[in-house]
Amino acid sequence: MPDVAVSPDAYPVTARNRVKRLHERGRYDRAAVHAILDAAMVCHIAYVIDGQPYCTPTAFWREGDHLYWHGSSASRMLRAQKEGLPVCLTVTHLDSLVLARSGFNHSVDYRSAMCFGTARVVEDVAAKARALDAMIDRFYPGRAAELRPSTEQELKATTVIAMEIEEASGKVRAKGIGDDEADYALPIHATRFPVTQVIGTGEPCPRMPAGVPVPPGLAGFTPGRRLDEIMLESHRTTFGEG
Amino acid sequence: MPDVAVSPDAYPVTARNRVKRLHERGRYDRAAVHAILDAAMVCHIAYVIDGQPYCTPTAFWREGDHLYWHGSSASRMLRAQKEGLPVCLTVTHLDSLVLARSGFNHSVDYRSAMCFGTARVVEDVAAKARALDAMIDRFYPGRAAELRPSTEQELKATTVIAMEIEEASGKVRAKGIGDDEADYALPIHATRFPVTQVIGTGEPCPRMPAGVPVPPGLAGFTPGRRLDEIMLESHRTTFGEG
Repeated sequence: MPDVAVSPDAYPVTARNRVKRLHERGRYDRAAVHAILDAAMVCHIAYVIDGQPYCTPTAFWREGDHLYWHGSSASRMLRAQKEGLPVCLTVTHLDSLVLARSGFNHSVDYRSAMCFGTARVVEDVAAKARALDAMIDRFYPGRAAELRPSTEQELKATTVIAMEIEEASGKVRAKGIGDDEADYALPIHATRFPVTQVIGTGEPCPRMPAGVPVPPGLAGFTPGRRLDEIMLESHRTTFGEG
Repeated sequence: MPDVAVSPDAYPVTARNRVKRLHERGRYDRAAVHAILDAAMVCHIAYVIDGQPYCTPTAFWREGDHLYWHGSSASRMLRAQKEGLPVCLTVTHLDSLVLARSGFNHSVDYRSAMCFGTARVVEDVAAKARALDAMIDRFYPGRAAELRPSTEQELKATTVIAMEIEEASGKVRAKGIGDDEADYALPIHATRFPVTQVIGTGEPCPRMPAGVPVPPGLAGFTPGRRLDEIMLESHRTTFGEG
């Protein structure tokens, strides 16, 4: 139950998702949270089995207010989620190292999003096949239609999990150095190192037949480009701005 | 209780940390797990409060078989961990995007490590101060001694958490494209994009007095260099190979 007024464009704010520490960094509007999620390929998912927490990295994607991920039907995580498991899915982008004049003011700039909900298996075979195509297209626009179609066996071996975002929060630090006023005059080297995740030059499979063109959906995958920008662009190409 | 024979250089393998899916990717020896941990600045920590899992990103570091992280004494996560909380701390490095000829064989190359243990607050003030200096030095060798010393108030406002690694596993995929044999002849573009996290050119604080030199501990922080390599190097400079 939300405990503050909710705008239709914001996630409800409750005890679970309220950003408590440095709350001025908190973001609850859908656009801000989605921009953090859609710029990522990999998330970390926290879930509990028999009282033991696990933190599993996995590729994921968003469609509207649902998050999806997939994996082997044999995996521990996905089997546990079959029954409808509470999870927290978190995405983090590290944007810079902040070297201040005191240990206390050392920091990093970052963008992160935490999403809460109940993970459920997508049982319907057609819905599962559609979701897996959406996953490929979300990362690589138009690619699902270019691939060798999935076999029945492959679909059977794959589990797709869907989670409606019940609550979410984003947290952003982008201020660089913030030292105590009295410390600025000290003869201490203070600096900020930007951090980016970038792709390198594509390495085409040497076993490709001659003359297979690079598909248009990969036009944005140019060497040195930021992965978060590519991922956000791919998401918007495939799903639009929604 | 370990359920397989344990070498002194390996973490015990139990139901909790055994790599079940694609078990040939699993690594349990300390050197392999530590190399994944020590190449990272940020981890994700799963923990449970009142049955609800949370997944929180944070900077962390390793000394021997202990992991440490810190935060505000007011944070929800750190207050819950005061009582000795089971956690799973996970580190993930994304190394490449693997675009195969079928959706099923799409993948990523990665290195990840999951560590299990019980998080406890470092209560002793001297131990806490020492840990916070170690944190700075672990990322930026020699830097703690160059900084304005921490105040009593800053130490009070900061909580340090320690966790002995009870069990851990690494998981590594580094094979690039692995298509079904029959699919290699298909006229489908298959490629691998390397992914790296790199630092950019340092942005010195404009408020530094003239003539403050770049400290020798930052000599490895050169533009375009991989952050995982810098972090591993910093760790070894500060703590040695152990």
